[in-house]
Amino acid sequence: MAPSPIIFYDMPSNLEINVWSPNTWKTRYALNIKGIPYKTEWVEFPDIEAVALKIGAPATGTKDGKPTYTLPIINDPNTGKIISDSFLIAEYLDATYPGKPTLFPPGTKPLIAALESGIINALGGLFMMQLAVTYSILNPRSQEYFRRTREASFGKKIEEFSPVGPVRDADLAKGKAAFTTVDGWLAKSEGKFVLGDTISYADCVLAGWFIWIKTTNPNWKDMATWHNGRWATHLENVEKAGYASMQ
Amino acid sequence: MAPSPIIFYDMPSNLEINVWSPNTWKTRYALNIKGIPYKTEWVEFPDIEAVALKIGAPATGTKDGKPTYTLPIINDPNTGKIISDSFLIAEYLDATYPGKPTLFPPGTKPLIAALESGIINALGGLFMMQLAVTYSILNPRSQEYFRRTREASFGKKIEEFSPVGPVRDADLAKGKAAFTTVDGWLAKSEGKFVLGDTISYADCVLAGWFIWIKTTNPNWKDMATWHNGRWATHLENVEKAGYASMQ
Repeated sequence: MAPSPIIFYDMPSNLEINVWSPNTWKTRYALNIKGIPYKTEWVEFPDIEAVALKIGAPATGTKDGKPTYTLPIINDPNTGKIISDSFLIAEYLDATYPGKPTLFPPGTKPLIAALESGIINALGGLFMMQLAVTYSILNPRSQEYFRRTREASFGKKIEEFSPVGPVRDADLAKGKAAFTTVDGWLAKSEGKFVLGDTISYADCVLAGWFIWIKTTNPNWKDMATWHNGRWATHLENVEKAGYASMQ
Repeated sequence: MAPSPIIFYDMPSNLEINVWSPNTWKTRYALNIKGIPYKTEWVEFPDIEAVALKIGAPATGTKDGKPTYTLPIINDPNTGKIISDSFLIAEYLDATYPGKPTLFPPGTKPLIAALESGIINALGGLFMMQLAVTYSILNPRSQEYFRRTREASFGKKIEEFSPVGPVRDADLAKGKAAFTTVDGWLAKSEGKFVLGDTISYADCVLAGWFIWIKTTNPNWKDMATWHNGRWATHLENVEKAGYASMQ
């Protein structure tokens, strides 16, 4: 019997494609690679906690001693399982649907976790720029929430996160330098994806971060030329293989 | 025909086991895993450049526009190839001796490179402490060279790198916190080695860094208890499997 569609909780925006979050993109890619049917439920930022509590999704962190909730979350009606966190969701999908393509070839989980940490480290100043540009593509309900929470986290106005001019130029230069290290790792690939010609969750991670940049960052045209076009080419390869589709 | 022993250039010390360098340990583990016969040539620090130039080994970096040379270096009489840099040596061994156990399972090179960067990042203040304690286990010829070059690099006396007291305590605390991240990655392994129950170059990297700490650091007894003993246990597993042997 064909499985019932997984319910996939994602965040909307004013982008034509709607999805923008690097973390929910990872899950969308993973579901597409596995070929598992799913249905997207769109949740604005201030509604995430209520949705998570209503369906009984696990918290993904704590703040001031209280649990915090983030997307992606999936609700799998075939098993009754509700999973939060993109990495844990990918592990769940491989374990629950082993007959489908594999997200983690044997033994690669610790290494893909290391790659993800390395990419997040490399983001550095680009991350602050990304928060600033993301604000402008959110819907009003999420904008208000995003501004309030991110300004509290970083102790300054969103407009000061990476202001256009010398600060943003420095963020871009530092970002480019940091990604030279990641480029060195990926240059060791013997194919068009991270692990060669076989797609894996490593590609979900890499493409998740860069599609966020591509769809929101006004400097993307320049960034697409960095490192011989590695980041733009990888996104194209993921898209051409059909893994960026929407359900 | 059995291959002729590879000549493996390594650095001596006053430790009973002689070898101490994390980078040459990686190559020693790799040669042992591959089961390739080798013969160690011991080279004191100030002699590395002359040996490298004499045998025509590639430089591994530049300083003030001039090439710099480091160990490990291998000279393979079976192919006439001379290779510098532990990662490049491991790649060479897999490519040249494909019938032997594999250091890089298919597709894992970029990921193992990411893991190595992640471990080096995590070292942080521990790295400065390691330079300080390494000084004391070197032979006099290398000590003089090591002091002169490292003090020039870091702009202070070796005795100030991580002095016993509050600075070293802080280095240890930061090191422990940073390795909590690496522990999170490795907790995803489904076996006793990084990739599960199969040894790989990822284990050479991990064990290379931690055997350096174990054999030189006066705080090892405490560090061996960190993260449920992960670092000490991993070293034991590598040793029990026979990969820490000397030729």
